[in-house]
Amino acid sequence: MSRVHVYRVDVHFGDCDPAGIVFFPNFSRWMDESSLAFFMACGIAPWRELVKTRGIVGTPLLEIHTKYFKPATYGETIEIHTSVESWAAKTFSHRHTVRRGDDVLCEGTEVRAFVVRDAANPERIKAIPVPEDIKALCSSFVPSRSQSSLPRPIPTGDNP
Amino acid sequence: MSRVHVYRVDVHFGDCDPAGIVFFPNFSRWMDESSLAFFMACGIAPWRELVKTRGIVGTPLLEIHTKYFKPATYGETIEIHTSVESWAAKTFSHRHTVRRGDDVLCEGTEVRAFVVRDAANPERIKAIPVPEDIKALCSSFVPSRSQSSLPRPIPTGDNP
Amino acid sequence: MSRVHVYRVDVHFGDCDPAGIVFFPNFSRWMDESSLAFFMACGIAPWRELVKTRGIVGTPLLEIHTKYFKPATYGETIEIHTSVESWAAKTFSHRHTVRRGDDVLCEGTEVRAFVVRDAANPERIKAIPVPEDIKALCSSFVPSRSQSSLPRPIPTGDNP
Amino acid sequence: MSRVHVYRVDVHFGDCDPAGIVFFPNFSRWMDESSLAFFMACGIAPWRELVKTRGIVGTPLLEIHTKYFKPATYGETIEIHTSVESWAAKTFSHRHTVRRGDDVLCEGTEVRAFVVRDAANPERIKAIPVPEDIKALCSSFVPSRSQSSLPRPIPTGDNP
Repeated sequence: MSRVHVYRVDVHFGDCDPAGIVFFPNFSRWMDESSLAFFMACGIAPWRELVKTRGIVGTPLLEIHTKYFKPATYGETIEIHTSVESWAAKTFSHRHTVRRGDDVLCEGTEVRAFVVRDAANPERIKAIPVPEDIKALCSSFVPSRSQSSLPRPIPTGDNP
Repeated sequence: MSRVHVYRVDVHFGDCDPAGIVFFPNFSRWMDESSLAFFMACGIAPWRELVKTRGIVGTPLLEIHTKYFKPATYGETIEIHTSVESWAAKTFSHRHTVRRGDDVLCEGTEVRAFVVRDAANPERIKAIPVPEDIKALCSSFVPSRSQSSLPRPIPTGDNP
Repeated sequence: MSRVHVYRVDVHFGDCDPAGIVFFPNFSRWMDESSLAFFMACGIAPWRELVKTRGIVGTPLLEIHTKYFKPATYGETIEIHTSVESWAAKTFSHRHTVRRGDDVLCEGTEVRAFVVRDAANPERIKAIPVPEDIKALCSSFVPSRSQSSLPRPIPTGDNP
Repeated sequence: MSRVHVYRVDVHFGDCDPAGIVFFPNFSRWMDESSLAFFMACGIAPWRELVKTRGIVGTPLLEIHTKYFKPATYGETIEIHTSVESWAAKTFSHRHTVRRGDDVLCEGTEVRAFVVRDAANPERIKAIPVPEDIKALCSSFVPSRSQSSLPRPIPTGDNP
């Protein structure tokens, strides 16, 4: 079972379009930020460090899928509830639920992979098997030290 | 069978991230631009006009789904090949194929609806049945006047 | 003497360009956010309310001037120290100093005006004399109630 | 006397804010794009090449100054008229005039420097004297080959 991390976003005037609501690609941007916040909250070292120690340069996106239910506008604070929905051999899926209070504004999944530089061609990157220790950290319920300063890590039972 | 309209984008430095490649939400932004360019190319009046004549305020997004295959970087020109993949009673699906030359960089679908303001509550919008005349314009192969100035409208057989 | 309000920004991956540093227009975006945060911190009602009670629709920009000294990158938290540098009859100048710890990263001024809709042509806006009560709230050192929840309002003596 | 290069921008829905007009930092983004288009139009090799042959990594911004006169909105095409206003020993100033037809929407200057990596510390960059050959290319009235494919290079007399 995955941890769930909650990432807060204050919506600003410049995030909104002439309809007065959040211009939709910003939700993708915030989910991306929330993915990183999730890993940091799980106690995983920043890519900056992991690239030195283990060659991992990040978790680029392979696929996104988002459904929009209700708009948000500036002056509002929204929450992105992020977890790992499933782990495959070389990829994993994030689930992001964007909420404003009790309202679910949109829901998205992201498929990502842990990648390293290709030794044969350092210009290219290639996916590696999901590291077991990272997987364990994302699933654990033992609060890590880095988690203690986070806004609201919420482990729940209703996420696979 | 849907028309296919090709929308060109020059990728700029500021569109790219520290990995040197297009920051992915920009693809969603460009697909959104390409959706509008598609309707204009089909000879449909701008929303600005349609809101006055028929109350249609636009085609907001209900859902997006994008797969990323290869990155793009600044200095490159990419093409977004946009068509209507399917029409439902009150929604329709765009297909966007992003190409750089022969390479397919990413593929996305968007589910959208034609909406009008709710008479009971003008703050709200509601979907209407897809207007038959608009549907016809998007499917027709007769080049409309507005299409003549477009870069490369390419009707093909491999789009439903 | 103006209050100084400090607005914090977490710099994210997507805010940075292929040089690995903040893409400069983002600093303008954050200064704009900080301007609004300043007025809220001073106890001024949101434009949303002011437009109803006094017709004030906001404080659009007439001019910006920014000097860049040092770059910022993702993973960093920066602070924007915002004050009113000077009040003219119908305009005022914000000063924004962007800091990372003791480093000054960039400095900007913004010239803005309080505007209302033109009665003769509601499509247009026009500047009004700076309201004295708003001016007073921005200058006062008496902590307002709304200020108490702010991260770090820092009244200093070295701002005009 | 500097060449003047004209860079065209189609304004899109997502470039505009809830006031229905271009969100101002986008003008800075477009001026940045126009700066690069100017150098390309003058026949200067892309930074990508110049970094290999001469170590020049680009022309980062030291300062921007923009005045906003009239707004722009989506569906409009605007033009950015870009020239070099002045050359100093190690910096130069661009002037960008943003027009929509005969209207001047905003005017901006940018101070930039040609930079190379610092040999002592490759993480840092340092300004070099403005290369005379580049300066000559930007001033020349002899149309360069690469210029011939550009939309509308307009050499005029009223730019220093």
